[in-house]
Amino acid sequence: MNTGQQEILGALHNCIVTCNECFDACLSEHHVSSMAECIRLDRDCSEICSLLVQAISRNSSNIDVLARSCVEICERCADECSKHDHDHCKKCAEACNECAKVCRKLIA
Amino acid sequence: MNTGQQEILGALHNCIVTCNECFDACLSEHHVSSMAECIRLDRDCSEICSLLVQAISRNSSNIDVLARSCVEICERCADECSKHDHDHCKKCAEACNECAKVCRKLIA
Amino acid sequence: MNTGQQEILGALHNCIVTCNECFDACLSEHHVSSMAECIRLDRDCSEICSLLVQAISRNSSNIDVLARSCVEICERCADECSKHDHDHCKKCAEACNECAKVCRKLIA
Amino acid sequence: MNTGQQEILGALHNCIVTCNECFDACLSEHHVSSMAECIRLDRDCSEICSLLVQAISRNSSNIDVLARSCVEICERCADECSKHDHDHCKKCAEACNECAKVCRKLIA
Repeated sequence: MNTGQQEILGALHNCIVTCNECFDACLSEHHVSSMAECIRLDRDCSEICSLLVQAISRNSSNIDVLARSCVEICERCADECSKHDHDHCKKCAEACNECAKVCRKLIA
Repeated sequence: MNTGQQEILGALHNCIVTCNECFDACLSEHHVSSMAECIRLDRDCSEICSLLVQAISRNSSNIDVLARSCVEICERCADECSKHDHDHCKKCAEACNECAKVCRKLIA
Repeated sequence: MNTGQQEILGALHNCIVTCNECFDACLSEHHVSSMAECIRLDRDCSEICSLLVQAISRNSSNIDVLARSCVEICERCADECSKHDHDHCKKCAEACNECAKVCRKLIA
Repeated sequence: MNTGQQEILGALHNCIVTCNECFDACLSEHHVSSMAECIRLDRDCSEICSLLVQAISRNSSNIDVLARSCVEICERCADECSKHDHDHCKKCAEACNECAKVCRKLIA
């Protein structure tokens, strides 16, 4: 595994953890209703990132296909999170944007 | 859940099970080496199908994004499986093609 | 695949879909805060059920190990859902209980 | 997230990546047949580890339940990998044993 792949796997792992922390924190906010779309996208994002970690590390022939979905979902999640003032949302938007940026390198 | 979605979920479930049965059977074949790509694609395919089942049933806003990946991976798996004469490969190619066909309806 | 396994895969698939429908509906309820634990357990439950579907259909040697976790998580989800009056929660409690019942057969 | 959880997430991430690298390398070995059980367990192990990463990072109430399965599957994978002389198998056995060790802390 080369340095580029290590960087991508690190960004994906960070995105998985940060999205799940945001999912957890959103469910404990006073106004959960206003966080519903964030909760949904946090789940979507952490799951496609997990799939991509696994695909990259087993040298799948579908890395590019999954990376396209992953970049798109990370960007949608970052957009939603950046609408909210909570620290966990800001941190999540940042992790998702970083993840989208590095995963774009995987797209042929 | 409407009839169209039920049909899609059924095709995805069938594809997950059939790909995993093919994965299992390929690993027991005499010439496993020649089945390596099939084993890899069976795994890829069953995992993206699982993700899509979950996304559809929770009414995710990323169904179309995941469906595009799923259709592409199902088609690649069907192409590989159709190269082999084993019954489990033929059955798998059929399930993947059927799954790709119905999931194409999800793409905007 | 024998009839017993088909029944188990059917119950798992139904549980995945029903938990995700409940997850989606809970996030649209007026009082989302009171549904937070339900939302969390719906996610946990649908994900372990997905893993078990894949393990059973590829004839994994860890079916019993995963089935123990699955039964426990299904029961916890059913307990939580049965505290709520929403139709989607009642339907989910029923699907989880049924799934726990059939998956108990997998435990050695 | 505290230091203990960071250590556990790091061990899980390492185990996911190492199991998938072993899965990939096993499928390229000359005698794939003798690696079949290793390939199967690599997949099982990477998938339960992924589930546990997600559960820990979203503060799930089922961390202990999933950790029990994860420890058991990591140990089975380590046992199988330690039977083989390939570097990727030795590295995988090590990562699985380390992962089992730290995840045991999560079991109540």
